[in-house]
Amino acid sequence: MSRVSFVNGMYLPHSKSKVHIEDRGYQFADGVYEVFSILDGYIVDYDDHIKRLMRSLSELNIDLPYSKKSIFFHISNIIKQNLIINGLIYLQITRGVSSRDFKFPKDVKSSLVIIGKNISFDQYDNTFKKGIYVSTTRDLRWKRVDIKSLNLLAPVLAKQTAFEKKSSESWLIDDDNFITEGSSSNAWIYSGGSLITRPVSNSILNGITRSTLIRALKTRKIKYKEAKFNLDDIKKSSEAFITSATQHVMPVVKVNNIKIGKGVPGPRAQDFRAAYMESLKLTEI
Amino acid sequence: MSRVSFVNGMYLPHSKSKVHIEDRGYQFADGVYEVFSILDGYIVDYDDHIKRLMRSLSELNIDLPYSKKSIFFHISNIIKQNLIINGLIYLQITRGVSSRDFKFPKDVKSSLVIIGKNISFDQYDNTFKKGIYVSTTRDLRWKRVDIKSLNLLAPVLAKQTAFEKKSSESWLIDDDNFITEGSSSNAWIYSGGSLITRPVSNSILNGITRSTLIRALKTRKIKYKEAKFNLDDIKKSSEAFITSATQHVMPVVKVNNIKIGKGVPGPRAQDFRAAYMESLKLTEI
Repeated sequence: MSRVSFVNGMYLPHSKSKVHIEDRGYQFADGVYEVFSILDGYIVDYDDHIKRLMRSLSELNIDLPYSKKSIFFHISNIIKQNLIINGLIYLQITRGVSSRDFKFPKDVKSSLVIIGKNISFDQYDNTFKKGIYVSTTRDLRWKRVDIKSLNLLAPVLAKQTAFEKKSSESWLIDDDNFITEGSSSNAWIYSGGSLITRPVSNSILNGITRSTLIRALKTRKIKYKEAKFNLDDIKKSSEAFITSATQHVMPVVKVNNIKIGKGVPGPRAQDFRAAYMESLKLTEI
Repeated sequence: MSRVSFVNGMYLPHSKSKVHIEDRGYQFADGVYEVFSILDGYIVDYDDHIKRLMRSLSELNIDLPYSKKSIFFHISNIIKQNLIINGLIYLQITRGVSSRDFKFPKDVKSSLVIIGKNISFDQYDNTFKKGIYVSTTRDLRWKRVDIKSLNLLAPVLAKQTAFEKKSSESWLIDDDNFITEGSSSNAWIYSGGSLITRPVSNSILNGITRSTLIRALKTRKIKYKEAKFNLDDIKKSSEAFITSATQHVMPVVKVNNIKIGKGVPGPRAQDFRAAYMESLKLTEI
């Protein structure tokens, strides 16, 4: 069976799923997106993702092109039609198609694309056991990364730089030499008996997995704090992690040349992951 | 006759010109573009635009998908097939189509789109006679705006803000309260007997029209300097301008509530425009 994607009201073979060359997503990065994790056929933290999607749209004055109910229906269809048990849904909304002009067009319907993808979690488990390498690079992004927009060229370059340095993720460094976050994940260290992650602002994305993990930590009365940290703090830390919809809670064992703890996932990695997995909310399709 | 656009090797009716939903231009703003002005059927400053295009591609490690000769051939075809005498060519190259992943895909051919558009220059002349209003807003862009990339969400928001303030352009203000440039143009003031524009760096785009005007000023021995300026400098200036491929040299008569000179295009506007028009290079198609 061939993959099926949703494009502006139509279910199309993925290979034939196209948008107009003057879609503002293509010319201006004028749109937003969400990535939903699918676990055992359920959607993870669906309401939180939709809430953030609505906020991103609102910040950019883009209309939701279909009702929330329709969007849920189409996401569910893409999961079913692509037989996704474990994987992800990528959903993208742009301001729509209009003759190229920077300012917002009038009377244009926003565009909706939904893509589904199967992912093997065996590979996830293998990576979790070993932990990942991270390298750092300057944070070149624009000043509204709290909006989950398509303005992603800086994270693309950061991820590629990480890849060329044999790392899986890049941690971005701001003008004051603090880590903001990963190129597509939030950054955490465990230091002084506490998990630490940067507080929410315009300088980071308010990660759903980040929020779920914080909720889990509160429930389990595990110490955490929201604070900025830099490379010196990383040197002093005994464990480190990234969180994202597709990586969940993934241990970091090296940052640049800094070995974290013993260079293997630390004693708390499994606990934090378990805390997250127990706290996420599953939505039936 | 219906409009025709070029999409990855094919000439298609504009309304049916589409790209894949996983083109990295659509998901990551992972691409670059150029806008060429067409005057009396000639392409303006073609070689300079192609040179800048090559630099943008090189900075992002994107391959030119066709030879320079082919690209010229296709641009010429789009001008001819759309009967463009005065107007513009929009050319966009992205890293290509690949299953969504931030890092660069392997063995992917980059995408090329060419769009042509007729523009009436009567309207330009009318606007020139009156001059335009500019309003200022914070420069929220990423730190590599010297690359003419699709990472354009910040300029989109800036232009929209200007539009809502009844202005035609937005001048962007950096963290030190200096003007960087316009959202889609370079910014100039005339003050102390000299034209002033910000020097080239990673904080502005090296405008082709800007360079051509500088060349014209040199030839005519008109005083100019490359220096940063702020709102105080604007208050002291007697004339102001923007330059861009489609706006050429356009007088600015108001910046926020600051009236420039007498609130109409100043005595030097026509000279600077003439200097630019005489110095641009025309390429025959």
